[in-house]
Amino acid sequence: MNALVLTMGEPAGIGGEITLKAWLRRGEQVPDFFVVDDADRLQAIAHALGMAVPVTRITEPAMAADVFSSALPVLHQAIARPVHPGRPDTANASCVIASIETAVSLTRSGHARAIVTNPIHKKTLYAAGFRHPGHTEFLAHLAGGSMAPVMMLVGPELRVIPVTVHVPLADAIGALSTEAIVETGVIADTALRRDFGLTSPRLAVAGLNPHAGEEKTIGHEDGEAIAPAVAALRDQGIDAFGPLSPDTMFSPRSRRLYDAALCMYHDQALIPLKTLDVDGGVNVTLGLPFVRTSPDHGTAFDIAGQGIASENSLISALRLADALARRRAVGDS
Amino acid sequence: MNALVLTMGEPAGIGGEITLKAWLRRGEQVPDFFVVDDADRLQAIAHALGMAVPVTRITEPAMAADVFSSALPVLHQAIARPVHPGRPDTANASCVIASIETAVSLTRSGHARAIVTNPIHKKTLYAAGFRHPGHTEFLAHLAGGSMAPVMMLVGPELRVIPVTVHVPLADAIGALSTEAIVETGVIADTALRRDFGLTSPRLAVAGLNPHAGEEKTIGHEDGEAIAPAVAALRDQGIDAFGPLSPDTMFSPRSRRLYDAALCMYHDQALIPLKTLDVDGGVNVTLGLPFVRTSPDHGTAFDIAGQGIASENSLISALRLADALARRRAVGDS
Repeated sequence: MNALVLTMGEPAGIGGEITLKAWLRRGEQVPDFFVVDDADRLQAIAHALGMAVPVTRITEPAMAADVFSSALPVLHQAIARPVHPGRPDTANASCVIASIETAVSLTRSGHARAIVTNPIHKKTLYAAGFRHPGHTEFLAHLAGGSMAPVMMLVGPELRVIPVTVHVPLADAIGALSTEAIVETGVIADTALRRDFGLTSPRLAVAGLNPHAGEEKTIGHEDGEAIAPAVAALRDQGIDAFGPLSPDTMFSPRSRRLYDAALCMYHDQALIPLKTLDVDGGVNVTLGLPFVRTSPDHGTAFDIAGQGIASENSLISALRLADALARRRAVGDS
Repeated sequence: MNALVLTMGEPAGIGGEITLKAWLRRGEQVPDFFVVDDADRLQAIAHALGMAVPVTRITEPAMAADVFSSALPVLHQAIARPVHPGRPDTANASCVIASIETAVSLTRSGHARAIVTNPIHKKTLYAAGFRHPGHTEFLAHLAGGSMAPVMMLVGPELRVIPVTVHVPLADAIGALSTEAIVETGVIADTALRRDFGLTSPRLAVAGLNPHAGEEKTIGHEDGEAIAPAVAALRDQGIDAFGPLSPDTMFSPRSRRLYDAALCMYHDQALIPLKTLDVDGGVNVTLGLPFVRTSPDHGTAFDIAGQGIASENSLISALRLADALARRRAVGDS
């Protein structure tokens, strides 16, 4: 079976070191993967941090599975300028982008089974001319489809799906529409069935305002945009319910009652997930023609280069990508 | 020492039954309290639910301490119409309000040591002509001061203070100002020192937008309203820091780094608190001339009258009111 492909991410961040640490834990049910990165820089990080990781250049993705047990397989993508941990350099932005493009291309052509991405630093990419709102939107663009990408965050106790992501909160409220909520809910329901293997996913839909509008006394969006979306989803046979009071729906008791929470903005989804989770959360992009996951942390410039960053979220992302790709392959066959 | 005064709250909710259950646990370091409620209705609830709670009418708050060990002391406040659990009646709204007014009056005159409030149902009160945005704002009005009331939620692992409370999210963003954040931060700092006994409270200030604006690329409020507020608080010698990325600041690691989180809107504060907390959270109103706490749940009409509602949050509220009032009394002497 083909390996998973892992991207470089921002080289001044923790991506390189957590990649090496994840490979060191390959005996713990970590699926085979190869990384599109600069082989020399990875080997240098391993040396600097005293990690016994042999780095082997591969010329074909198909070689990865044979190499993986004895060395970290790297499809070499040279960086433009030497990397200083914590100090991103716009000169390397094109390499970061090229790594993602290569990973998508290899996955779309079937040479890799799924994509796992290391964190990027958007400001550095923007300075180099990158024009996509985020990592996920860029992947959707590369996928060539017209679908809006949908982000799901998966933790050990909770799955959350924000309807809007990296936009100012005021704009997220302004853009909230019944159509957007329904579209996201349908993509979520499809993914929960196809990739997560749930036969009848329960979708909890969050309200927007305090107490979900408290019976229409606080704001209008809960009644005018969200409630009709819940009704429309139910009309399509999707087990959606809400709008629920956002503050109570993530309590230990409440979160047992659904398989995923559809949230109205970025932090409504991410706050409960990260409040619960130490470092094992995974970001999954729904609605793409391939499986893509990523760790749910950033580049962590403050600790980059020290070898102290946790590889747990990356390992969770690799394992989940493997599980989702297997299930999708079975469904498609 | 004077007892605490507990209000009736919405009689069709769970207030009566959790009051009785809290009294039954009086041996577990529950401070002496009396309730301003209808003595006959409380006795009827006790009978209906098979709870061995003798209800004794008192005519003076000073009698409460003597009565408490053998019976629930009630300062009788007759209800207007019989109560049906789960079905609030506007005819009883004036009794709900009178109970709060009596409790404030007794506390301000020194006959009660602090106020604990049972949950009210605002829509019922609004229908009966109540014109205050919420319970807390009503208490501030009764306190006669000009201060904006500040709500702190206290859980076992986290204290949060929202700068705005029961307003539509769009309005909360529109109203966000450096002045409001600073004013709330000062009240929070004062309360943490005076009532909570912290000598140098650490105040984490949340951002508003995803990733606190991600270095000014997402929205303007983090840079224009929140960052100047943090600077102004620090200029006053308050150990405030931020704006922090809202999604990561409540993680297990992050929340060890501060004593309270200053949050920009209701759910940013309440989601992490209730995600963590089962039923022991307490609402504390800061900046009032008296100590006031309340359980952090609502009227729970869906389970009212069944005796299954948990009294844990009410007990936590009684204990915290006792502790805060003792500390304030020491500080004032």
